[in-house]
Amino acid sequence: MIECDKISKMVYGGDYNPEQWSEDVWKEDMRMFKLAGIDIVTLNVFSWALLQKDDDVYDFSLLDKIMDMVKENGLYVCLATSTGAHPAWMARKYPDILRTEFGGMKRKFGGRHNSCPNSPTYKKFSVRLARKLAERYKDYDNVVAWHISNEFGGECFCDNCEKAFRVWLKEKYGTLEALNKAWNTTFWGHTFYDWDEIVLPDLRSEHFAYERTMFQGISLDYRRFMSDSMLERYKDEYNAIKEITPDVQITTNLMGFYKPLDYQKWAKYMDFVSWDNYPANDDSYAKIAMDHDLMRGVKQGKPFALMEQTPSVTNWLSYNALKRPGVMRLWSYQAVAHGADTIMFFQMRRSIGACEKYHGAVIDHVGNENTRVFREIAALGKELEEIGDLTLGSRTKAKIGLLFDWDNWWSIEYSAGPSCELRYLTEFGRYYESLRKMNYDVDIIGMDDALEPYAIVIAPVLYMVKGDYDEKIRSYTRNGGTFVTTFFSGIVQENDLVTLGGYPGKLRDIMGIWVEEIDALPNGEENEFTYEGEKYPAKLLCDIIHTEGAKSLSEYEKDFYAGSPAATVNSFGKGKAYYIGTASSEAFYQKLLTEICEDAGVTPVLKTPEMVEVTSRENEKGRYLFVMNHADESKKISLSGNYKDIITGKNYHEQEMVLPGKDVAILREEK
Amino acid sequence: MIECDKISKMVYGGDYNPEQWSEDVWKEDMRMFKLAGIDIVTLNVFSWALLQKDDDVYDFSLLDKIMDMVKENGLYVCLATSTGAHPAWMARKYPDILRTEFGGMKRKFGGRHNSCPNSPTYKKFSVRLARKLAERYKDYDNVVAWHISNEFGGECFCDNCEKAFRVWLKEKYGTLEALNKAWNTTFWGHTFYDWDEIVLPDLRSEHFAYERTMFQGISLDYRRFMSDSMLERYKDEYNAIKEITPDVQITTNLMGFYKPLDYQKWAKYMDFVSWDNYPANDDSYAKIAMDHDLMRGVKQGKPFALMEQTPSVTNWLSYNALKRPGVMRLWSYQAVAHGADTIMFFQMRRSIGACEKYHGAVIDHVGNENTRVFREIAALGKELEEIGDLTLGSRTKAKIGLLFDWDNWWSIEYSAGPSCELRYLTEFGRYYESLRKMNYDVDIIGMDDALEPYAIVIAPVLYMVKGDYDEKIRSYTRNGGTFVTTFFSGIVQENDLVTLGGYPGKLRDIMGIWVEEIDALPNGEENEFTYEGEKYPAKLLCDIIHTEGAKSLSEYEKDFYAGSPAATVNSFGKGKAYYIGTASSEAFYQKLLTEICEDAGVTPVLKTPEMVEVTSRENEKGRYLFVMNHADESKKISLSGNYKDIITGKNYHEQEMVLPGKDVAILREEK
Amino acid sequence: MIECDKISKMVYGGDYNPEQWSEDVWKEDMRMFKLAGIDIVTLNVFSWALLQKDDDVYDFSLLDKIMDMVKENGLYVCLATSTGAHPAWMARKYPDILRTEFGGMKRKFGGRHNSCPNSPTYKKFSVRLARKLAERYKDYDNVVAWHISNEFGGECFCDNCEKAFRVWLKEKYGTLEALNKAWNTTFWGHTFYDWDEIVLPDLRSEHFAYERTMFQGISLDYRRFMSDSMLERYKDEYNAIKEITPDVQITTNLMGFYKPLDYQKWAKYMDFVSWDNYPANDDSYAKIAMDHDLMRGVKQGKPFALMEQTPSVTNWLSYNALKRPGVMRLWSYQAVAHGADTIMFFQMRRSIGACEKYHGAVIDHVGNENTRVFREIAALGKELEEIGDLTLGSRTKAKIGLLFDWDNWWSIEYSAGPSCELRYLTEFGRYYESLRKMNYDVDIIGMDDALEPYAIVIAPVLYMVKGDYDEKIRSYTRNGGTFVTTFFSGIVQENDLVTLGGYPGKLRDIMGIWVEEIDALPNGEENEFTYEGEKYPAKLLCDIIHTEGAKSLSEYEKDFYAGSPAATVNSFGKGKAYYIGTASSEAFYQKLLTEICEDAGVTPVLKTPEMVEVTSRENEKGRYLFVMNHADESKKISLSGNYKDIITGKNYHEQEMVLPGKDVAILREEK
Repeated sequence: MIECDKISKMVYGGDYNPEQWSEDVWKEDMRMFKLAGIDIVTLNVFSWALLQKDDDVYDFSLLDKIMDMVKENGLYVCLATSTGAHPAWMARKYPDILRTEFGGMKRKFGGRHNSCPNSPTYKKFSVRLARKLAERYKDYDNVVAWHISNEFGGECFCDNCEKAFRVWLKEKYGTLEALNKAWNTTFWGHTFYDWDEIVLPDLRSEHFAYERTMFQGISLDYRRFMSDSMLERYKDEYNAIKEITPDVQITTNLMGFYKPLDYQKWAKYMDFVSWDNYPANDDSYAKIAMDHDLMRGVKQGKPFALMEQTPSVTNWLSYNALKRPGVMRLWSYQAVAHGADTIMFFQMRRSIGACEKYHGAVIDHVGNENTRVFREIAALGKELEEIGDLTLGSRTKAKIGLLFDWDNWWSIEYSAGPSCELRYLTEFGRYYESLRKMNYDVDIIGMDDALEPYAIVIAPVLYMVKGDYDEKIRSYTRNGGTFVTTFFSGIVQENDLVTLGGYPGKLRDIMGIWVEEIDALPNGEENEFTYEGEKYPAKLLCDIIHTEGAKSLSEYEKDFYAGSPAATVNSFGKGKAYYIGTASSEAFYQKLLTEICEDAGVTPVLKTPEMVEVTSRENEKGRYLFVMNHADESKKISLSGNYKDIITGKNYHEQEMVLPGKDVAILREEK
Repeated sequence: MIECDKISKMVYGGDYNPEQWSEDVWKEDMRMFKLAGIDIVTLNVFSWALLQKDDDVYDFSLLDKIMDMVKENGLYVCLATSTGAHPAWMARKYPDILRTEFGGMKRKFGGRHNSCPNSPTYKKFSVRLARKLAERYKDYDNVVAWHISNEFGGECFCDNCEKAFRVWLKEKYGTLEALNKAWNTTFWGHTFYDWDEIVLPDLRSEHFAYERTMFQGISLDYRRFMSDSMLERYKDEYNAIKEITPDVQITTNLMGFYKPLDYQKWAKYMDFVSWDNYPANDDSYAKIAMDHDLMRGVKQGKPFALMEQTPSVTNWLSYNALKRPGVMRLWSYQAVAHGADTIMFFQMRRSIGACEKYHGAVIDHVGNENTRVFREIAALGKELEEIGDLTLGSRTKAKIGLLFDWDNWWSIEYSAGPSCELRYLTEFGRYYESLRKMNYDVDIIGMDDALEPYAIVIAPVLYMVKGDYDEKIRSYTRNGGTFVTTFFSGIVQENDLVTLGGYPGKLRDIMGIWVEEIDALPNGEENEFTYEGEKYPAKLLCDIIHTEGAKSLSEYEKDFYAGSPAATVNSFGKGKAYYIGTASSEAFYQKLLTEICEDAGVTPVLKTPEMVEVTSRENEKGRYLFVMNHADESKKISLSGNYKDIITGKNYHEQEMVLPGKDVAILREEK
Repeated sequence: MIECDKISKMVYGGDYNPEQWSEDVWKEDMRMFKLAGIDIVTLNVFSWALLQKDDDVYDFSLLDKIMDMVKENGLYVCLATSTGAHPAWMARKYPDILRTEFGGMKRKFGGRHNSCPNSPTYKKFSVRLARKLAERYKDYDNVVAWHISNEFGGECFCDNCEKAFRVWLKEKYGTLEALNKAWNTTFWGHTFYDWDEIVLPDLRSEHFAYERTMFQGISLDYRRFMSDSMLERYKDEYNAIKEITPDVQITTNLMGFYKPLDYQKWAKYMDFVSWDNYPANDDSYAKIAMDHDLMRGVKQGKPFALMEQTPSVTNWLSYNALKRPGVMRLWSYQAVAHGADTIMFFQMRRSIGACEKYHGAVIDHVGNENTRVFREIAALGKELEEIGDLTLGSRTKAKIGLLFDWDNWWSIEYSAGPSCELRYLTEFGRYYESLRKMNYDVDIIGMDDALEPYAIVIAPVLYMVKGDYDEKIRSYTRNGGTFVTTFFSGIVQENDLVTLGGYPGKLRDIMGIWVEEIDALPNGEENEFTYEGEKYPAKLLCDIIHTEGAKSLSEYEKDFYAGSPAATVNSFGKGKAYYIGTASSEAFYQKLLTEICEDAGVTPVLKTPEMVEVTSRENEKGRYLFVMNHADESKKISLSGNYKDIITGKNYHEQEMVLPGKDVAILREEK
């Protein structure tokens, strides 16, 4: 969240690009921002070319004007460093700043997110610009946050990256012997005798498709290296700014489950997390919630900023359907329900040229306030003012931790076999969404996070057990925790080398099982199993399990492994370890997880009809239930305590609440 | 059409490549051409490598022989300049002649249509060859047309093109300030400070897919530039030839709705239009008709030449089905029905090697006249002789103009949002095909053409209103014209910059509406509306319309914008302006257009059963109805006047005509 | 097969990579190999980087150790030369060894099968290594075979290949005049005046997709050249080794129907054929059989070695399903049933890193013998010991020859038209699989093989008739043979130039027909014909046939060619020539082929229920029927003679045999 003493409410605003407009338009913007209850604007996101016209020629005059104008109009500023797209002249003069694509295609100037993270030119000029901005605007007390670059992402496969990769490897492995071992280079005669023999893994070397590699070890390390390379550029700017304005918080806008960047590592270097929420047309509300919970989780529960969302349409989907009436408000509150204290839009005024001109905006091409979209924005602005600081800083106290890990994401999806349909997010989502739809609050945690706060820890497809993470699980479970994992877990260590001695490797004693074989079911084929009297499908992979102390929960009903366990539970110390050996239907996950929760004493926030989501947050001012009706029609929700809806002011005493379609209530628990 | 005093009939012939055969075969060709009633051959299409063996070594001896032979045999010649494929030696010696692909792949020698239009080598040698040919054969009075290069097309993305693009831009914009404004380069920090910073837009710069760009402005200009670049090469050859043989008409073979080249601009520089008609297996007759009408339209109605069609199969379709008996004749007459005075084939003799050896020909591999295909060709040859000059030079007098514009085609399909399924040709075709199937004669006009000749002007998806084209519409409508346009119209000006102040921009007053929002419906989803008691689907895009003087014709029935107009009509001056805010079914278009036509006093040429097409042409000798039965079975057509079928000589007096499947009648109106 | 005096049984073993493991693991391997009945290991497949550390630095110490260890443990060795993947240092030092992809992408180090076959570096170092290995290990009498490189394959499109291609062309054609004629370069003006003008055919020149070319002649020759280039590298190593160990047989592992390499040519230079059998999940048993029969056929029936198969899963399929219990054994015997005398696995021990770690192995990651897969392997090992030498060296005596030809494969699938769905293997498979499912033994022969041994010769889609191959057919048929061919036959000669004078060209007199036109039916469309009272579909292509002496067997029932023959038979000398003018259903092929076989006195090995396959082999010890039940359920098979099952020892006297699902019997004919 954007924290600032001066603001005692959820901050409300968005990306504002006055440099695209003449000054007469600015005045109209200010008038309309006031109508809409806007507090804050993100400035300077794509202005590098305007600010720096040559190696040593900087011109801040336009930005000065803009900064003064918004300050005069009482707006807070989230000030971007504008290094998300380099100037054309720089690309021409210093081509090292241009990226190289996966297949070796050297880029020319164009687009955005276009700088090679290992370019000396980019390193030099990006830091210098950040420093100049900090120096120039350090006295503007309405600057409440810095926004470094924009949506870091993508990849580069140029010669500079190749060289930097070797340096990174040398630092990591020390010796070639260690590297050869880590990558198992005796396979296919890949032994390296000199660091310079190592080439980066792409379509020209180890890959035969974007996510298909012949050497998992090098490909996995390149992922880590590329995430680190961008993080280095972020940190360079961060450090430069921090020196000058130590009291202003710094962020960059993340993108939820974004595969190329290990945000759990990144978040350590961010003062607060902010992120851009652009669901696809058919995303379920639970899927959107999952992104929010990840974004809260990477910073250990600290409230985050919703840095961007569209007020109405996007421009880049296949079908850019309008957000129906109420949806923008509903999704704004959903962000808050999951931990946001800041609600911002991309963009304040719709541009007239290039590829985002049909992306929604607070101010549309028609240019006035008489639009449905503007009216909805202004109405929400008013509500946020009324809510004030009540929910600020509140935290979610979840008793369930879901383990998510980028290294696992990368390595599972680089795996050659057993199934092309094994996708980490899909399997992770089966557990998350089942819990979410039953209104259990969940924290998405990383490998560095403590397990003890949780009654239940679920680690779907814990394929890669890094270092002694098994010890962490062992200790947690032994001390009474409930640990749940699935098929294709415990298979490899941190370099993607198989842990010998039988699957699930280092988890074998905890789970009390041995997985002899893994069967891959072609799309459309299913096995089945009966659990508590109901039949459920077994899909994707079927582990053939031998119990070694564990108890079978259910057995396969078909094929040559009929009768062998599909799921097991093991008593381990004071705790329990569940192993789910196959993928199944949501009905199964809801059934299973309900029982595990009941057994561990974990309860949902509230029981509601389908499509009604509820989360909780707490601060010193109270405990809030966020009740959101994602359906089109109204729903009845039974409340068993006393509540006050802080939006409407309405009181509820152990009664039924009727919530219209797409509507929201924020219920504060009352005595 | 190929005009020549000496030929008083529709010219009949095709592409002839005797250089692929030994001289004994030539004699047999001549014998068979006579059997088939062939008048004309196109020679020298792919002979550059034979004619020029090195920088200064030319050898016309073989062509001399061929020219003499065909002259002796009484054949007319359409003489090609053979610059459609450069020689291998030239590519080796001057690699600048080779093209570079969209992703930066530099081509080697191979294929055809292989020269970079901005290659100095190509420019020099192509003109020189054209001039030499004109000088050498200027006295052959049987040369009745010049055929420059062949099927100009494709694109190039090489460094020479990049440099030429900058020159083209400098000429267009004058200053970088103007260019930066036209392209809205403040977006994403793209400001240019030097012309040399501009790189061409392709996969290496602004595009992330062939038709997906991040900067519409530069991509659109590159389209224009590339069309112009090829036109320049065409004009170079044209001018060289014209100097020497001023009285011989010059053409190049176009390709119907071919996106890369703005044929409306090209046609200005062509003495007559010729084109190659290769429908796909499943093209409707109305779709083929649309191509013909475009080809007639780009030259303001002047009769054109059908330069190529296959007598039987093509070689490049997925499934190269035979043209069924009668179809070659039917489609030949369909060309005439829409404005052709010349019927030609590719190819006269089927080649034995390389990729076109399974393409149909007048003379098949079997080498004699005893084939079904040859018999059909000879029969048509005989008919054309009998028809003689009756229809020559006749014109179509259409009362409906359909506006088609290449800039709109390009820009609509570069648009990021609102829907990936918005295709200009599809929307254009909805109107054209509905009219065609009801036998309304239609002219396809460009932005430079006058609107006054038409009772009705339809401009489907007039997204881009260039310059003061709105004034043209305003004046036309005010003076009594009926103007029809659709959703996603009036949005931008000529640089793809949005016209502010509310959609449909500069058309807003004419249409009497304001479009607040545009909803994109995913494939398969529909809204609906009721028009004159019938329900019709609303698809693709749904404009949310506020009337501002216009009258609603029908309203949406579903979703949050139920009740708001789906289509409107506005009285404007003495005329009417229709706005159709969504895409619908053919049934709707036929219903709507029939009413608009009736209202404007426009009638179909003839009412016929389904699958029977009728068009009209008129010259000083009479008015002709071309009646074509595209069905397999025979059809009955009611004739209310007196007619004589100039093919069969049969007379019809207000009676029913029975037309067998695939058959054709050319009815001359009789007193 | 791997022949060796010392081994009087089918050899059993597989690829073994001890260099990936520490020495303590080796001992465990030896123990388990004994448990499994393993005789032989393939060593040194991917050790180049370990053996050669710089230009002149070789280190064989580890291989020495391994060689000694396996010898001490009584194992035979198939010794690989390890040139299937070059060292990283070599790629860095000599980039000419790296391949260039079809689109011109120069590769970096990575993967395997990565050396350019025309790289001087590869040529020099690969031969040198083969020689050094032969010299070093020539006295190990347990080396029973050499294994050159590994799975030769792929392609290269680099400048060295281009240069070598020109040399190859010069040798083939002698003069440019001959080459211009062979490629029909007058088409599209491609005349070459200098050898250096010729560039290789790829995406940069003549191709617009991988298998879509504009010039068939050059593309076909490049296929031949590339197959020859790799063969040259194979031969270099072969000759180097043969000089030193003249008595040890040499092979390389082929891959069944592998399009890039003309194995019929390769087999001439191999002492015995070995191949790697990796069926896809849904391959029918008949399809797998077809591969085996090809591998037996390319070496004129000589027993071959099954060099690789997986004991359980592969890693590279989309869904790597487990081989069900019994399937590994069933498919091992199927290889033997079709001519193998050797059964080997990839791999002996499952690796821990890189892309094959989830590929099945004899020893799994769990590392012990207590797995289903190991138990099945050990059980088969025991059976093979018990069978001993009974079947060794036995041959299949087929009376039906199916002609398969790589040039036809290449040229048919380069053809532009008539149908994109015409695939040589599909059409070939229609005939092979129909016969196989009826248990006819078939030899797959090449153009160099004699036809006389066969009562019936079938040549599906004999598109290209090279040289005077028509004379071979003419003489065979005239002398009483039955010859069968199909649509799209006799069309071209060896350079893909059409044979003029009417299809099927040089086969016209033999077939007694003229094919006037070829209709291509879009996917989903069918014509039909009635044969012996049953209706069958006509698909893909429909030849329109005129009989010229032949008798029509059936006529099309629809479309304008209804009534014209769909299939014909011609009496030619003492023989018969069948022409099947369209593609149809398996029911038709089974019907037709049964009658042709009966007519020619050819009988199936045994009549069995569906899914039961039977083949025969004979040696001096007896005649064996291999009876394989590919179904899951047991099947009853009627035996009319006396047999002894050499696996179980059970005797059968004119009785019904019950064969459980997935089970196998090897029945020796008894008196």
